[in-house]
Amino acid sequence: MPKTFVDKLIQNIKNKNSILCVGLDPQIKYLPRILKQEFQNAYPNKIEAAARCILEFNQKVIDNIFDIAVCVKPQIAFYEQYGSFGLYAFEETIKYAQKKDLMVLADVKRGDGGDTALAYSNTYLGKIETLDQSSLESQLNVDAVTLNISIGSACLDPFIEKIIENQKAVFAVVKTSFKPNSEIENFKLENGQPVWEKIAEFVNQKGEEAIGEKGYQNLGAVIGATYPKEAKIARKLMPKTWFLVPGYGAQGAAAKDAVAGIDQNGRGVIVNSARGITASFLNKDLKSDQGFEKEIRKAAIASRNELNEALK
Amino acid sequence: MPKTFVDKLIQNIKNKNSILCVGLDPQIKYLPRILKQEFQNAYPNKIEAAARCILEFNQKVIDNIFDIAVCVKPQIAFYEQYGSFGLYAFEETIKYAQKKDLMVLADVKRGDGGDTALAYSNTYLGKIETLDQSSLESQLNVDAVTLNISIGSACLDPFIEKIIENQKAVFAVVKTSFKPNSEIENFKLENGQPVWEKIAEFVNQKGEEAIGEKGYQNLGAVIGATYPKEAKIARKLMPKTWFLVPGYGAQGAAAKDAVAGIDQNGRGVIVNSARGITASFLNKDLKSDQGFEKEIRKAAIASRNELNEALK
Repeated sequence: MPKTFVDKLIQNIKNKNSILCVGLDPQIKYLPRILKQEFQNAYPNKIEAAARCILEFNQKVIDNIFDIAVCVKPQIAFYEQYGSFGLYAFEETIKYAQKKDLMVLADVKRGDGGDTALAYSNTYLGKIETLDQSSLESQLNVDAVTLNISIGSACLDPFIEKIIENQKAVFAVVKTSFKPNSEIENFKLENGQPVWEKIAEFVNQKGEEAIGEKGYQNLGAVIGATYPKEAKIARKLMPKTWFLVPGYGAQGAAAKDAVAGIDQNGRGVIVNSARGITASFLNKDLKSDQGFEKEIRKAAIASRNELNEALK
Repeated sequence: MPKTFVDKLIQNIKNKNSILCVGLDPQIKYLPRILKQEFQNAYPNKIEAAARCILEFNQKVIDNIFDIAVCVKPQIAFYEQYGSFGLYAFEETIKYAQKKDLMVLADVKRGDGGDTALAYSNTYLGKIETLDQSSLESQLNVDAVTLNISIGSACLDPFIEKIIENQKAVFAVVKTSFKPNSEIENFKLENGQPVWEKIAEFVNQKGEEAIGEKGYQNLGAVIGATYPKEAKIARKLMPKTWFLVPGYGAQGAAAKDAVAGIDQNGRGVIVNSARGITASFLNKDLKSDQGFEKEIRKAAIASRNELNEALK
């Protein structure tokens, strides 16, 4: 049995022949009409109705992609908007995915320091404290989280401790997929580097504390698919770092751009697609979106295959 | 009636003669024993017990400080650790504080772009969408949020839109209170400035889109109390920006350092104290921490007065 997150990831990628991560980013306009009608009628509380519908939809998605994707990445913002009901849907989505043998990357991009960073690290990768001062895993315990580390190691250190101890990982924001409104990432430093490159070096150095059995670091990096040139620079700066690549599919980037950051072994990248897969049933002229599950499965298979082609 | 957040804040500061913000950052070790015992016995689910105890404690705190403090700042990390139960406690804390005429600053430091930033802005400062595509305020709707904007305007723009429309505010992370592990904030730019100064200029410029009636911007800045020298630089770079200052009290900074960023009118700062107030009953030799409420009120009054002295 592999002993760290990244070694488990490598094994799962091999077993499933897939570097696909499916983004679970539920938005009302991308949910099947048949489910929306059902849950609207079933729950008088509109917030609860939305959250329960999202959970049901996610379970259907997971049922249809669990053997195709290597992991799922729920973006917590789309759950958090429905408050405690939404967080319940998030928790149950995590559990359901893990039961189906999917690794779960919680896209939370938390970015704070001190006791706050410690609390977040306990929540997602460690154990939380109860009133009797015993400790247990939170309902939000996952395999990996994304983090915004722009303050500095104050954001990262409590997580690093837990990575090896609990076979977890962190994907730090290094270069996002946003264009053109990512000005701060691109501020020029005194040596001419943009800020994000220096953060890449910082991640590479910090990752040395969290090396897996095959030499890859369990501190990964978020590298947007819309910046393939930068992905190659990022690979030079972070030769042993695993990249989580958003922006492929509906967000605009092609498969070959999404895998631009692979290393000399043709590894080191997982690629996320959200509504390119989960909203693929729209515009298919399905009556009330009935049969959305099949379209989602087809889109996941197509994305997996397209990414595998691009890796060759 | 004042028309923007910052004008309401100015009026409340005047009415209450206070620039104190009370941080509601519940940690098990800082909760009164008498409450812990009660809730441990009442709820078999340990996560629910913790969340319900936190809510009860917060209500007692609010009952004792609502006329002393101008606002409360719950740090969501300490609620999020208890998942959906924790978020329920967060929601009910917000409602209770608002009923008691306290402004609520949700310390969430979210930092993401695109649809994710839009979802967060809808959640905290706007309206969320329901299954029937109507819209309503979320359970997390507050007066202001903290944000981590280190990607760039992708993080900020959806919030700016809502600031004026809904009389809300954002406090962007500019210079945190962490020492010495805030390396990335301090990376030197090509002109010799640290990154945080350039973010300050960015905030100042963006804030022009959200000016209040008295000329202050409704885009504020988080400026750590532990860096008084930097607070003065920050004031020069952001002359019309309201500062939210953490790090005063238990976190180490003195009152005069906490108000180092005031402007020429002696205004522009609110100062947060969390466990300096909410954990002030510890080490008072109270039996099972009974009577903690009085100690909290005393500490809040002392902090308010100390800050007012420092303003002179």
